[in-house]
Amino acid sequence: EVLQQPESGSITRGFSALVSPTCSLQDYMLQQTMLRVKDPARSLDFYTRILGMMLLQKIDFPSMRFTFYSLGYEDKADIPADVKERTAWTFSRRATLELTHNWGTECDADLSYHNGNNERRGFGHIGIAVPDVYAACKLFEEQGSVSAVAGRRKGLAFVQDPDGYWIEILSPNNMFSLMSS
Amino acid sequence: EVLQQPESGSITRGFSALVSPTCSLQDYMLQQTMLRVKDPARSLDFYTRILGMMLLQKIDFPSMRFTFYSLGYEDKADIPADVKERTAWTFSRRATLELTHNWGTECDADLSYHNGNNERRGFGHIGIAVPDVYAACKLFEEQGSVSAVAGRRKGLAFVQDPDGYWIEILSPNNMFSLMSS
Repeated sequence: EVLQQPESGSITRGFSALVSPTCSLQDYMLQQTMLRVKDPARSLDFYTRILGMMLLQKIDFPSMRFTFYSLGYEDKADIPADVKERTAWTFSRRATLELTHNWGTECDADLSYHNGNNERRGFGHIGIAVPDVYAACKLFEEQGSVSAVAGRRKGLAFVQDPDGYWIEILSPNNMFSLMSS
Repeated sequence: EVLQQPESGSITRGFSALVSPTCSLQDYMLQQTMLRVKDPARSLDFYTRILGMMLLQKIDFPSMRFTFYSLGYEDKADIPADVKERTAWTFSRRATLELTHNWGTECDADLSYHNGNNERRGFGHIGIAVPDVYAACKLFEEQGSVSAVAGRRKGLAFVQDPDGYWIEILSPNNMFSLMSS
């Protein structure tokens, strides 16, 4: 067995017992996470106005009746104006969020997407690192529409997007003390 | 209405009709995507040996009986040796994959996680950008255990991880012609 069940709580202090890659694939990147959204207007408002992401690209697939929106934390000045260049650039960014809108879902009162955290579970959340969790949550609340904030006392928060997907708000420098406590 | 339904298929050529953020949150990053996994031994083998990610950190939560594993495309030489530094560093990386293992799931024959693409749908996939989709898929197949590869003729592939989550394999420079065709 490659991994052993830990006997007591701890952050792993060494890599000796852990799997290591046999090859170094330096040019690979985790480029996107795709989530379906019911209503792109409310989702884009949430991710851009409240969470501060940039809309990098929007691509329509009329024959399949869907559109996707690529969002990320990028400098607007870096986005190429030329559509061909912008498409290649968008897909070369690490850590984008791809929101897929199947046309008409926003008008379907019976449709809601599964956020992965009820049965059957699977996907859990995306996580956004911020310099200060408290300041970020205050800003989110001032911008409105944040449907849930929990655990702020511990310096870690969760908010829900308009479809109910969970978003962890974390600060890198807080994590060791959180994990160790 | 903020967004208008497209009348014909096209990649958006301007941002005028699209939402823009009102604030520039330059210090924010999309840091992680969390997926639950049934058996961490097989998942770590898949993501490190086959997909080439590095295991950045492993943290146990014995009181809640789960462990998570942070993975990403990083240079092993950059990973701090000190556990406190490594934890802060891990959570300051863009685009990590956080695999959550609830202890015992690997022994539960009835348990399988939901990959988001059957009813009810929600999460769709993660996507990995590679220089050459064909070369990457060949490598994945040589390393074994890739359960599905589709669409390679178009320069875009999907593979499934051991829990059935979909992973898009894409090459940034292919995307414009793929989207426009």
